[in-house]
Amino acid sequence: MHAYRTHTCAALRATDAGATVRLSGWVHRKRDHGGLLFLDLRDHYGLTQCVVAQGSPLLAELEAIRAESVVTLTGEVVRREPGTVNDKLPTGEIELRVREMAVQSAAEVLPIQVAGDQEFPEELRLKYRFIDLRREKQHRNMMLRAGVIASIRRRMIEQGFTEFQTPILTASSPEGARDFLVPSRNHPGTFYALPQAPQQFKQLAMVAGFDRYFQIAPCFRDEASRADRSPGEFYQLDFEMSFVTQEDVFAALEPVMQGIFEEFGQGRTVTQAPFPRIAYDTAMLEYGSDKPDLRNPLKITDVTAHFADSGFGLFAKIAASGGIVRAIPAPGAAGNPRGFFDKLNDWARTEGAGGLGYIQFAADGPKGPIAKNLETDRVEAIRAACGLKPGDAVFFVAGKADETPKFAGKVRTKLGEELGLIAQGEFRFCWIVDFPMYELNEETKQVDFSHNPFSMPQGGLEALNTMDPLEIKAFQYDIVCNGIELSSGAIRNHRPDIMIRAFEIAGYTAADVEARFGGMLNAFRYGAPPHGGSAPGIDRMVMLLADEPNIREVILFPLNQQGQDLMMGAPAAVDPARLKELSIKLDIAPPKGAAGPKTP
Amino acid sequence: MHAYRTHTCAALRATDAGATVRLSGWVHRKRDHGGLLFLDLRDHYGLTQCVVAQGSPLLAELEAIRAESVVTLTGEVVRREPGTVNDKLPTGEIELRVREMAVQSAAEVLPIQVAGDQEFPEELRLKYRFIDLRREKQHRNMMLRAGVIASIRRRMIEQGFTEFQTPILTASSPEGARDFLVPSRNHPGTFYALPQAPQQFKQLAMVAGFDRYFQIAPCFRDEASRADRSPGEFYQLDFEMSFVTQEDVFAALEPVMQGIFEEFGQGRTVTQAPFPRIAYDTAMLEYGSDKPDLRNPLKITDVTAHFADSGFGLFAKIAASGGIVRAIPAPGAAGNPRGFFDKLNDWARTEGAGGLGYIQFAADGPKGPIAKNLETDRVEAIRAACGLKPGDAVFFVAGKADETPKFAGKVRTKLGEELGLIAQGEFRFCWIVDFPMYELNEETKQVDFSHNPFSMPQGGLEALNTMDPLEIKAFQYDIVCNGIELSSGAIRNHRPDIMIRAFEIAGYTAADVEARFGGMLNAFRYGAPPHGGSAPGIDRMVMLLADEPNIREVILFPLNQQGQDLMMGAPAAVDPARLKELSIKLDIAPPKGAAGPKTP
Repeated sequence: MHAYRTHTCAALRATDAGATVRLSGWVHRKRDHGGLLFLDLRDHYGLTQCVVAQGSPLLAELEAIRAESVVTLTGEVVRREPGTVNDKLPTGEIELRVREMAVQSAAEVLPIQVAGDQEFPEELRLKYRFIDLRREKQHRNMMLRAGVIASIRRRMIEQGFTEFQTPILTASSPEGARDFLVPSRNHPGTFYALPQAPQQFKQLAMVAGFDRYFQIAPCFRDEASRADRSPGEFYQLDFEMSFVTQEDVFAALEPVMQGIFEEFGQGRTVTQAPFPRIAYDTAMLEYGSDKPDLRNPLKITDVTAHFADSGFGLFAKIAASGGIVRAIPAPGAAGNPRGFFDKLNDWARTEGAGGLGYIQFAADGPKGPIAKNLETDRVEAIRAACGLKPGDAVFFVAGKADETPKFAGKVRTKLGEELGLIAQGEFRFCWIVDFPMYELNEETKQVDFSHNPFSMPQGGLEALNTMDPLEIKAFQYDIVCNGIELSSGAIRNHRPDIMIRAFEIAGYTAADVEARFGGMLNAFRYGAPPHGGSAPGIDRMVMLLADEPNIREVILFPLNQQGQDLMMGAPAAVDPARLKELSIKLDIAPPKGAAGPKTP
Repeated sequence: MHAYRTHTCAALRATDAGATVRLSGWVHRKRDHGGLLFLDLRDHYGLTQCVVAQGSPLLAELEAIRAESVVTLTGEVVRREPGTVNDKLPTGEIELRVREMAVQSAAEVLPIQVAGDQEFPEELRLKYRFIDLRREKQHRNMMLRAGVIASIRRRMIEQGFTEFQTPILTASSPEGARDFLVPSRNHPGTFYALPQAPQQFKQLAMVAGFDRYFQIAPCFRDEASRADRSPGEFYQLDFEMSFVTQEDVFAALEPVMQGIFEEFGQGRTVTQAPFPRIAYDTAMLEYGSDKPDLRNPLKITDVTAHFADSGFGLFAKIAASGGIVRAIPAPGAAGNPRGFFDKLNDWARTEGAGGLGYIQFAADGPKGPIAKNLETDRVEAIRAACGLKPGDAVFFVAGKADETPKFAGKVRTKLGEELGLIAQGEFRFCWIVDFPMYELNEETKQVDFSHNPFSMPQGGLEALNTMDPLEIKAFQYDIVCNGIELSSGAIRNHRPDIMIRAFEIAGYTAADVEARFGGMLNAFRYGAPPHGGSAPGIDRMVMLLADEPNIREVILFPLNQQGQDLMMGAPAAVDPARLKELSIKLDIAPPKGAAGPKTP
């Protein structure tokens, strides 16, 4: 018989009754019952109920050991009495009558409990992560993550992608977030950087002639942590393709995303490919966001024209001064009591808006302060424009053209929630496309890149040379699920001439570009294919699937919000001799208020 | 028609003749032939011959562009004339009659050539790695590596292993090689370390209740580079299993290794599982190495007893003073001319040995200086012990018991090579088992750990308490292929009591152990399963399969031997403001001989 087990703790069934077996696992729970000792033995796979008979010499020993001790139990499989069968447990038809026991590891008093639903502070959980991970939800989340990643890999490989490992010790990026630096021992005074993303390497892989690259890529950013962002490292499904248009990239990713969310969504419905493509301008108009949550059915309408020169003086004035008015429908809300509208108005004020105008389309006609002042035909025109019927209401936000669309988006979200319109059990995907290449920097009044300077402008060199820069769109796109941006992506600018011209428009000389991005430019001078890709965040995908708002719940051994590993004790002070080897020394500012050395 | 391609450059066949298609790729080679221009267009998948007809307006344009430019060619597929079919090319039956061309990227003069077999200096190749990787062998090696890794993953997952990502920003290890350090911005004066291996994390994953972990794990060591070791990062198939014996670990890994080497071995034969298990002591005796190359059929025999008190004074003296004599057979070598034996003797002297004695078992009896002096029955006993027949020879090495076995191993290798005995086209695997737990430190005469202090001693606590430490074996093992150690592994010591006792024998107090390894010890106090694993090096596996002695040939974007990324320019100086943020400053020693500041 095997030293530790003949079966896992999830394996035994009624058909095994009579067999002598051996199980190993953790003592999940013990209870005395009529002189018998019942013990739930747990391993990675499941639970098996084990019983020590009255009078057994093992009783005292088992009573003495603590929960979470690791034991090996040998005995006979017996069917449970009909009344004691546990339908919820795959092994619920049997129990193990224990004849022998070996304690593999006796547990001390636990800082956190494994069995049960008790909550523990996150810091304690992270310090004892090796115990915390034994808990059912944590264990399930980790297996979900592993399953998602394995399935992504399978799906990408089936589509002809090849996974490569790009360097982790590399050069500092010239732009983007803050890098982590690694001092070089052999080259004093110099540093490696950890990659913020393998962006340059994946593009170089395309230049090197590989056609469809992907990687479950570790990425590193020395940024503040947020609920959906780890302070140190994170993983993305980094991919890139050669000789592709934007639609080819979408067609490659969509079946992977749809497949993953169907496979692991536990019955939640998933947008069927092709996912909706929504132009950036449309998204900002209709959803007030470039990350629209399509589970919310509400769409915003621009009604500025209906208020221009109208009897509702406040909005007429806003329209006259270049402002805009947006209408957000509230289906079925006309009959709500006054308090409903007042509460939303108050909320809008806490959000920094002047308030929230509205019209109620009651059965007996439009109602509310705006309806009183606005011409009847304009009220009717707004109703028609917003597709409203009797019983519906509509809210208005009005103000400057740059701020109002986003606030309309907030109102849309708020109304969706208040009216219970957000569809549950759905994953709603879309692509946001046609991002503007440039925007006007409001402070400097200069044209600036609006998102990614390395995307290919739509229309190429000709567009750059002939169009108003603010009208130029980029082949750049985001994939969004339930209001969460999973990734940006782009068809890259692979042409040095177009890149230099694109930067010139944003105020950079060719020499600037060569100095800052010479490496990539140079690579593009030896035969570069048109290429593009994207890099959906793995952690965010798993958060969506696990329905976890905290990213640390989907990472095996996460850093805490302060970027510390409480279990391993990182970061930590190091021996000065180690720093000497690396040709660095500490340069710690004295605490504020401490007296510095006096200048003589 | 797609903007870039309807087919890849490996897709077209005779059955496509007549179709209008579009291909994109790199201009691999051009040649004029009877007024026509032939152009081999290359992409990731293959080559297609394209033809521009005499008088075509495209001729001048195509003649002007350089090799490695990226073009899109549109035209008609035509069958080649029977005499011009290229059997070596999957597309060799057809060619593309070019009607349209678009230049996607014009190449400048190339620093290294892609077509052809010209060799280029490694530094130049690494600087232009994005061109170098287009070459056939480099491209093939990368695809091999990717294929091996994907297959490993599939095989591990099929065996019930789950892949987890362990942290890359972590704590410095208390032992082993030198870590790379990463200064923490938010915690001045402290550092993360990059993991030398996920050893502690995989053990903690077992303590956390996961049963079979694996990871294609990036590992980081700040070590000098060697042909088979990268100076920065490398990958290993890191795995760990709970509730297993050593044999369970072997049974899990063997089908993966056998499967991988059969799948990618291109017909080379592979040891069938179960792989031979060779005790460390036996390996040192019979192969003179704990990394035996089993393609070499020679086995070493200890013949000390046959020389003790014998007529061959030199060896008799060595035997009398506690030395040993080892015999290495040289089958069929008896008839070799004197020069063969002299050359080997000279070689032995260059290796630091006194020389290399030998006996030739000629058809008419034993010959050579040793045979002259050694008693006939002893010569015969040696012949029998070594399994020699007439026509064979045998070589002897003699000396101190600690050095001689290894030198015998060198002679074994040398003879295998000289006699052409190393089997070609074979991957010969074995496990080396039963490593000694302790050894005597020759300098201090103290008992010290001989390999891994964290392995479980065979016999557990009882062995530690009752046996001569130098007799205790560990549950530690190496997997070796063709003389290359792919990995060490062990059943881990998961018991704090056994670990403290094991360290006590090596001269450490319990307090020492708590101070240095408290993290793991502490984890083992809350219920730890027996567990073990190993971590075969991925790069080394691919080197074996690709038959590449240089590790950089199997890495996509490798650092050079000085740990520099010549393509991206890493490591590099950074802005002092960045260092200030990290609370460090440079501490560069002035060049040797430079005048330092004078002490006043």
